[in-house]
Amino acid sequence: MAKTRNPVDVSMDVQVQDMLGKAREQGVETAFDRADQMSPRCPFGSAGVCCRLCLEGPCRIQPNGKGPQRGVCGANADTIVARNFMNSLIQGTAAHAEHAREVALALLHTAEGKAPYHIKDVGKLYRIAEGLNLSVEGKSVNEVAKDVALKALEDFQRPEGTMNWVSFRGQEKSVAKWQSLGLAPVNSHLEIAKAVTRGAMGSDADPINLLLGGINLGIVDGYGGLHLSTDLQDVLFGTPQAVKANYSLGVLDENKINIAVHGHIPLLSEKVVEWARKLDDQAKAAGTEGINIVGVCCSGNELLMRQGVSIASSFSSQELVIVSGALEAMVVDIQCIMPGIQQVAECYHTEIITTLGHVKIAGATHVDFEPEHADEAAKEIVEKAIKNYANRDHQNVSIPKDTVEAYAGFSAEQITDVLSKLNEEKPLQPLIDALKNGTIRGIAAMVGCTNPREKQDVGNVTVAKELMKKDVLVLTTGCTAHSLAKNGLMNPDGVKECGEGVKSVLKLLGEQAGLPSLPPALHMGSCVDNSRPADLLKALADELDIAISDIPVVGSCPETHNPKALSIGTYFISHGVDVHVGVDPQVSGSSLVTHTLTGNRGDEEVTTDRLFGGKLIYEPDPVLAAEKLIERIDMKRKLLGLSTVEEATT
Amino acid sequence: MAKTRNPVDVSMDVQVQDMLGKAREQGVETAFDRADQMSPRCPFGSAGVCCRLCLEGPCRIQPNGKGPQRGVCGANADTIVARNFMNSLIQGTAAHAEHAREVALALLHTAEGKAPYHIKDVGKLYRIAEGLNLSVEGKSVNEVAKDVALKALEDFQRPEGTMNWVSFRGQEKSVAKWQSLGLAPVNSHLEIAKAVTRGAMGSDADPINLLLGGINLGIVDGYGGLHLSTDLQDVLFGTPQAVKANYSLGVLDENKINIAVHGHIPLLSEKVVEWARKLDDQAKAAGTEGINIVGVCCSGNELLMRQGVSIASSFSSQELVIVSGALEAMVVDIQCIMPGIQQVAECYHTEIITTLGHVKIAGATHVDFEPEHADEAAKEIVEKAIKNYANRDHQNVSIPKDTVEAYAGFSAEQITDVLSKLNEEKPLQPLIDALKNGTIRGIAAMVGCTNPREKQDVGNVTVAKELMKKDVLVLTTGCTAHSLAKNGLMNPDGVKECGEGVKSVLKLLGEQAGLPSLPPALHMGSCVDNSRPADLLKALADELDIAISDIPVVGSCPETHNPKALSIGTYFISHGVDVHVGVDPQVSGSSLVTHTLTGNRGDEEVTTDRLFGGKLIYEPDPVLAAEKLIERIDMKRKLLGLSTVEEATT
Repeated sequence: MAKTRNPVDVSMDVQVQDMLGKAREQGVETAFDRADQMSPRCPFGSAGVCCRLCLEGPCRIQPNGKGPQRGVCGANADTIVARNFMNSLIQGTAAHAEHAREVALALLHTAEGKAPYHIKDVGKLYRIAEGLNLSVEGKSVNEVAKDVALKALEDFQRPEGTMNWVSFRGQEKSVAKWQSLGLAPVNSHLEIAKAVTRGAMGSDADPINLLLGGINLGIVDGYGGLHLSTDLQDVLFGTPQAVKANYSLGVLDENKINIAVHGHIPLLSEKVVEWARKLDDQAKAAGTEGINIVGVCCSGNELLMRQGVSIASSFSSQELVIVSGALEAMVVDIQCIMPGIQQVAECYHTEIITTLGHVKIAGATHVDFEPEHADEAAKEIVEKAIKNYANRDHQNVSIPKDTVEAYAGFSAEQITDVLSKLNEEKPLQPLIDALKNGTIRGIAAMVGCTNPREKQDVGNVTVAKELMKKDVLVLTTGCTAHSLAKNGLMNPDGVKECGEGVKSVLKLLGEQAGLPSLPPALHMGSCVDNSRPADLLKALADELDIAISDIPVVGSCPETHNPKALSIGTYFISHGVDVHVGVDPQVSGSSLVTHTLTGNRGDEEVTTDRLFGGKLIYEPDPVLAAEKLIERIDMKRKLLGLSTVEEATT
Repeated sequence: MAKTRNPVDVSMDVQVQDMLGKAREQGVETAFDRADQMSPRCPFGSAGVCCRLCLEGPCRIQPNGKGPQRGVCGANADTIVARNFMNSLIQGTAAHAEHAREVALALLHTAEGKAPYHIKDVGKLYRIAEGLNLSVEGKSVNEVAKDVALKALEDFQRPEGTMNWVSFRGQEKSVAKWQSLGLAPVNSHLEIAKAVTRGAMGSDADPINLLLGGINLGIVDGYGGLHLSTDLQDVLFGTPQAVKANYSLGVLDENKINIAVHGHIPLLSEKVVEWARKLDDQAKAAGTEGINIVGVCCSGNELLMRQGVSIASSFSSQELVIVSGALEAMVVDIQCIMPGIQQVAECYHTEIITTLGHVKIAGATHVDFEPEHADEAAKEIVEKAIKNYANRDHQNVSIPKDTVEAYAGFSAEQITDVLSKLNEEKPLQPLIDALKNGTIRGIAAMVGCTNPREKQDVGNVTVAKELMKKDVLVLTTGCTAHSLAKNGLMNPDGVKECGEGVKSVLKLLGEQAGLPSLPPALHMGSCVDNSRPADLLKALADELDIAISDIPVVGSCPETHNPKALSIGTYFISHGVDVHVGVDPQVSGSSLVTHTLTGNRGDEEVTTDRLFGGKLIYEPDPVLAAEKLIERIDMKRKLLGLSTVEEATT
């Protein structure tokens, strides 16, 4: 039978531990409990050797060599594992691509005066137009916005050629490599549909070919998903600048109407914030001190950066926001929304409000949110929350006391802006100098989620601290940022965790920004904002006239739960950036697939490392993971002819 | 331990039994053996309650209520089963949509003079152009073809609105219903990508909403896949007309170079036939009597209808064509290609030749086939086969003696043409009269595959014979047609299986065509040609001014193995046509999903039957299946006020 973990073994976060205790006391089941119940997990699925792609099966390969070694169709473990891995990438990529398309369509409708949004960052709009080689002469802002939106939509439409956003945002060296390998994507939807067909019954059965197809999807994910989303969201909602906000379950306010905004696309969350402000008086008339919007997952990150909204929870503890008893509504759009929130909400007064026709939860309230009628929908949502306050059971409210202060919103533009105070002409030069002389040993993008079956925050925080103390500059996004923030790593005080080199750089830069130091982890945004560290890398590589794969940079995703993390990781690997994952990517059933991804094949054989200069590092132990990452950073330093740090990895 | 079936329990086909015996004698493993080894199958996957969509899992719901009832995220069995079912539909739909897109692109390139194909059916081109409201005045054939191709490609591109092919080929009554339910598709790729996102972690968790999303995919499958493919293939390669050819493994020719063409898209297969004819002398120079092309699966059906090419095998016995020892090459494009063929080919001299960059098999020869360079590629492929004849082991050749003669190629146009000999002005009237007076009780489209874990041909043949003897007119496509052909049901002699009513109609029509009778099963083509029975139904419904759902018509798919059959079935259900499947669709883990699809829910609740007038009938027993289908036919007759047959179902 499965063992139930004690709350202290479920999260580093005492507030999460306490709230889980409350849930259990009240007989409310959460993801942490379900993760315990689901253990041990199916060994076939965990190894990637289970195939359910047609009605000849289900089939499963016996990993020990005893029993069937091929599915009914003849697919062996290598093919099955590669197909399953590709299916994960399809899911991740489609999620990001559809996110981007929704925003592109909203930009188009905004430009046409059909949707109630505005062009907030005109400067960025014009920089994007220039990057896309669009003429802006004699055109109004809305006309330029329309042209940009149409170019964006082309990336879901063109039948041949290379995606606009790949040509626009990709480094030339990378794009040339992908084109030479036939991996440059034509359009996001086309590549997704094609990938579905190659994974389907009786189609692509060559594991290496499938993995190369996975690289193509990674590129789609990065440019058609991440970059496109970030670019257009910045245009519509503003490019983030450093901002101060609070983290932890304690951001709920007993005296206010609490609305959690959960999901991913800021089209909804921005409007909810806008209407919460407009209807604050209505909330006060209901006997409260107003409305308190809190963020969950990436909708939280988006609002944090642009509106200074505080963050209540990362992925794995999302249900516990409801267990507080103080949440009037949880408004969701898409992705990472546990169906379990509805079951939990039914034990409290919280109203779960779904907003997209194609993303519903049985039993939840549905308010259709279309950008064209965003105001009506957001108003209705906020009014529902206000009305629901009457149902709050004040006896059952328990909000933890403390919150953690953190700085966020370090877009590539914001970082460049701070750097330019040291060198106005060549703002990247101070960073390059620090990298060259070893003051900064390397850069790590720490990204991803939390996962109910892993102890929350441990992986994220440990890897980050291990890297920081070895003078690696840490950038962060997504729910990983949440882990780091709660543990003081997005606060200037946290700089004490850094080695002397990085510490000196962060302090110097902090001074330019009027702070004692920049925080040791620079929060760059949501998961789609993994485009931002990529932008910084491209700028660095271009400035140095080297490939991105040459830079001593790594990615780390210690606690992922979502296939999106795998597609983001693949995007980085396609540029030759090593990527660590701390959660089993479920490919162990094929040594061919595993070794192709992790770079451990014979000298003549294909690996991602050999083709692109980057590989997958699967290491559940966060200390060992950091060691392996630093080893790769030092290797890349060496290849660049840079000094490696004396106290090298052991 | 799994039990190995005797050859007589694996197929009705004695030749298949014999060849399987040879394979086993020679230690060669085939799909039939692997299906035996894989038994018993995983009960979780079989019930649809296994979820592998994120890295919190794998999760599985205990069907007996003991143990976990929700995945880690909180998804229950209903959500998990609905998502898995949708993922099957995504695969099927993407396969058909990509098939259609490849043909549309080839038509565009042909019209532009960039690809070596020709507009073969100019009349159909113009009828399509008219249906799409395209002006043809003053335009050349190629200009019209280009306009049609661009309209087709629009169905993968438009950001809003309804697909062209839905408006063009859909019955107005159906389209209006779909639009009112928000289910009318915008473009194929968009709907596929969106469906992927809704099935992904933390997105759509409402099982009914997911099933409605499945209906949307069914519509995409039908119009963006089937109709689009058939229409443009007819334009490029000609609309099929009745043709005589041979079936069974016996169509291989010991004295010739044998090339099997296997897969789906005629762009490849047509060119292989063309070049086989051109290089026949080269084959003779190699000491043979020439080149013998044989078909496997749907590439076979396409060539059968348009080129009179004989058919060697349906899906489940495809490897046995190689076991004959007489096959020089098996040329494949996409879908239903068992990876096992390569393993089998390595035991003989057969060269497996893959032709698409995104569909390879490890170990096989790859010749890149792009429509633009179709001639070069086809020439290379045929030459490889000729060269490989030298490697044939003549001692190990065993070709069964007999073949079965069959008639195929009954396109809707061909059927209308025959009918018009009875009533030139209103060609459908004789059919309508026969339906009205009960001479024809109803119509059944018998479609689908064979499945290595089912006894080959039994389901297909039994359902067909049961329906025929009860005066149901049988149309057939795909590998099901193969089963029927081998058992004499695509031959005029087979009419003896029919009840007196249908027999009289088929004999009358046969006389018009210069035959003793039309065959009792009218072969309408490949799997994408399930558009053809649909065209006939639409014409009938329009003529009668009723909805398609009102016609006493059913679909039956007794032996499917491929998710494509489920998406085709969903397409028919979306029109209100009942669809029988004889193989478990793997939804039994959710009674909600099962009953929504099969129509067994409370009076107020959503079912496909209630929404569209058609439901899924899962019945593994072919005799019972036929009874249930006839029950539905009679019910629809009754609703139309038509006489029901006295000897009604019991």
